[in-house]
Amino acid sequence: MPRSSNVSETSAEAEAAPGDWRQIEPIALPGTLAAAKDAFHDRGFHGTSIRDIAARAGVSLPTLYYHHENKQGILVALLEAGMSSVLGRVRAAISDATTPPEQLSNAVEAIVLHMTADLELASVARELRYLDHDNPHRQHYVGMRTEVEDLLEDILRRGIDSGDFQIEGDVKESLRYLLGACQEVTTWYHPSGTRSPAEVAGSYAVTSLHAVGARPSTQPGTSTRTTPRS
Amino acid sequence: MPRSSNVSETSAEAEAAPGDWRQIEPIALPGTLAAAKDAFHDRGFHGTSIRDIAARAGVSLPTLYYHHENKQGILVALLEAGMSSVLGRVRAAISDATTPPEQLSNAVEAIVLHMTADLELASVARELRYLDHDNPHRQHYVGMRTEVEDLLEDILRRGIDSGDFQIEGDVKESLRYLLGACQEVTTWYHPSGTRSPAEVAGSYAVTSLHAVGARPSTQPGTSTRTTPRS
Repeated sequence: MPRSSNVSETSAEAEAAPGDWRQIEPIALPGTLAAAKDAFHDRGFHGTSIRDIAARAGVSLPTLYYHHENKQGILVALLEAGMSSVLGRVRAAISDATTPPEQLSNAVEAIVLHMTADLELASVARELRYLDHDNPHRQHYVGMRTEVEDLLEDILRRGIDSGDFQIEGDVKESLRYLLGACQEVTTWYHPSGTRSPAEVAGSYAVTSLHAVGARPSTQPGTSTRTTPRS
Repeated sequence: MPRSSNVSETSAEAEAAPGDWRQIEPIALPGTLAAAKDAFHDRGFHGTSIRDIAARAGVSLPTLYYHHENKQGILVALLEAGMSSVLGRVRAAISDATTPPEQLSNAVEAIVLHMTADLELASVARELRYLDHDNPHRQHYVGMRTEVEDLLEDILRRGIDSGDFQIEGDVKESLRYLLGACQEVTTWYHPSGTRSPAEVAGSYAVTSLHAVGARPSTQPGTSTRTTPRS
């Protein structure tokens, strides 16, 4: 029961609507998950107790245990909320374009917008290493992450075949490079800084196109990409 | 006294010898710091007690407190050991080249080799957010990190001036992109995998040159860069 409750508690909010992949608002999370997200961000998974989470959420331990089997279950729910959101964004962003350069640009933009929309939720992805390896939900989470990677790898391979991209080395390693750069946005981006989410997302899309050796003529909208879209 | 002991305990090992910037061995750390590094990696800063560190190191609490004022002091010593190592490598790598593309290639290679040489030590950099903002050593650490960033920014700006690099947007954001990609190596690299540190470092150097719009003719040694050097 607790595990199925996890899923039903988060699934409604987690999937981005197809046309909404450029939205910059954080995902709405139930109170206990929002509290856990803050706690994990402030003190890490092992530095947070289930009592800390209940206290931050202002709920009793029995209420918290009604929804989540244990702290691992809460971590799973947060990881899945973040990953299903980015997967939904990336799918929609790719559908919104046709050529490999446009699709890569959109996909990178979608990932960076996911990072900046909720820095704390995006940072929780780093806590995956604390999820038990035999946790039955681990496979589902890793499956979603693999789907994101596969979608991008497919774009890179189609772009190489079409002559749009020039990647000399290992395609998967180029992909890790791109995704790593995007993931690290959570460590330096501040909403109060001078750069808007759309500006960062646009400039990361352009840099990613360069990184995979996109010919300048194939780079979509580079002249306007560093301008906020909305 | 404890803080000056921190420094003397680590400084001898921390600075890479100038000619050694391509070495792939982990930094030798005193036993207590090696134990703390493992503990922080396994459970995070707040998930680790000073007793855990003493137990892992096989020393008494008084012995540990003789060298380090508290857990924050241990974190400082680890952060400084990692950062002074990468700073030493980057300085030496840049001195070992003349043109901006060669220097960028060397610098990225040096940073990735730092990451792969000791994944756990390199990961400790993420724990900076748990270092008290009024810790007197924070400024020294951040100063070293800023020096690494400034060295790379200087290369990018000289490369733009010389026409070697084509960066359309913000130079600092391009730099964050490169450094982020390198930092994330710690999250996916496994020494037991198919890629050697030199191979990953070489391919990251090539991808970084692409990312900053290096003209193919200016990219040093790209045809051999994915081959291990030693």
